[in-house]
Amino acid sequence: MLRKDDLQNGYHIFQDPDYFCFGVDAVLLAHFPKLKKGDRILDMGTGFAPIPLILHAEAKKRGLDLPLTGLEIQEYPAQIAEESVVLNHLEDAIDIVRGDIKEAAKIFGAASFSLITCNPPYMAAADGLVGESEQRAIARTEVKCTLADVIREAAKCLVPGGRFAMIHRPFRLVEIFEEMRKNRLEPKRLRLICPYPDAEPTMVLVEGVRGGKPYLVTEPPLIIYQKDGSYTKELLHIYGRD
Amino acid sequence: MLRKDDLQNGYHIFQDPDYFCFGVDAVLLAHFPKLKKGDRILDMGTGFAPIPLILHAEAKKRGLDLPLTGLEIQEYPAQIAEESVVLNHLEDAIDIVRGDIKEAAKIFGAASFSLITCNPPYMAAADGLVGESEQRAIARTEVKCTLADVIREAAKCLVPGGRFAMIHRPFRLVEIFEEMRKNRLEPKRLRLICPYPDAEPTMVLVEGVRGGKPYLVTEPPLIIYQKDGSYTKELLHIYGRD
Repeated sequence: MLRKDDLQNGYHIFQDPDYFCFGVDAVLLAHFPKLKKGDRILDMGTGFAPIPLILHAEAKKRGLDLPLTGLEIQEYPAQIAEESVVLNHLEDAIDIVRGDIKEAAKIFGAASFSLITCNPPYMAAADGLVGESEQRAIARTEVKCTLADVIREAAKCLVPGGRFAMIHRPFRLVEIFEEMRKNRLEPKRLRLICPYPDAEPTMVLVEGVRGGKPYLVTEPPLIIYQKDGSYTKELLHIYGRD
Repeated sequence: MLRKDDLQNGYHIFQDPDYFCFGVDAVLLAHFPKLKKGDRILDMGTGFAPIPLILHAEAKKRGLDLPLTGLEIQEYPAQIAEESVVLNHLEDAIDIVRGDIKEAAKIFGAASFSLITCNPPYMAAADGLVGESEQRAIARTEVKCTLADVIREAAKCLVPGGRFAMIHRPFRLVEIFEEMRKNRLEPKRLRLICPYPDAEPTMVLVEGVRGGKPYLVTEPPLIIYQKDGSYTKELLHIYGRD
């Protein structure tokens, strides 16, 4: 059953909880890149397109009008994403393209974007939950594409100096760095996300620059909850509730 | 001028402030590895040997009597380190060896240790401060050995399954992971050190396992000061002041 949610940034999004709902990870990723004038942006594996919708609102706040593309392999979320685009009157700003991440460079051509975001499936195919629906499995586990596929195609689709921003699980950080360097995407920004100030990080934000010089900036950990269980100031700000 | 400092763990250490004094990084590194029965431990670039002295005290607390070796290239700190060993009556426990990290595998033989620690110089040689004394430069910049040298020799000197624990600057984390994997030292533990809860990390602790399977555990950030400027509980505990 389709549901209409308020993104708290002037836009609304349709999503289907029976299928998949975006989480805090998509929201955090969409707030991670520093948007620049002239950016051409691709979100790989966009699902119901929360990331393009949030990026568009963030760009607008900064007086930027940036063209956005969402790439999605499954027909149903692509169709719903298009309905959200129409709902928010963003037909001229956000383009939803059906296609496979593994063929992104073929679809868009090399060096077509200056910023690429991706909230990929986190689990290797072998680790996926048994009994998940196929749609859910595609969103969560590497059924359709692997981490290596995502990074390779992102690198190809970026202009020199273009940025690739991804959210993932910290346990795969070594592999993330390795695949990025292999594809000349130098990791330049790292931010761990911890549920509480003294808790193990559960997610990690990484940004690589196509052909960048080695120097990693590790930003302060992003904390989700204060000790009393309420959201931190930064999370409230990200969710537009401050 | 030689100074005698209380390590707050039952031991004292001689060091020379005109030369180099160990910092919080050495202390944090010495508390990072989980000591095991039967461990044979090497500290590479031991200086005045704060790390062997702290490791010995930590092992003793756990009822472990572990043989420790400190490798140091410069005569003066090696000599002072030996004086500290004698001062604490640890001649049977801690061995100070004069030698070059780049030749560690030649000096000790392959697979001679189960745990190796290193608090290496952080800065690439080109970035070193001009006008530093040579001794200080050797401790701080990669004059005598590079990150790649340290990791290569540590890997050679470890038994399969042996651990290599290092503290370094976060900006070199990508290189650290790359060099470790290149030498079959799989990064298994990562801990960022932040001066304050919401500050950028200034140091990073990394532990790799010789021939380990890929899976990085990212531990909660280690915070040094609370917001009011006093030490955190964990720091007080590490310094033996709780």
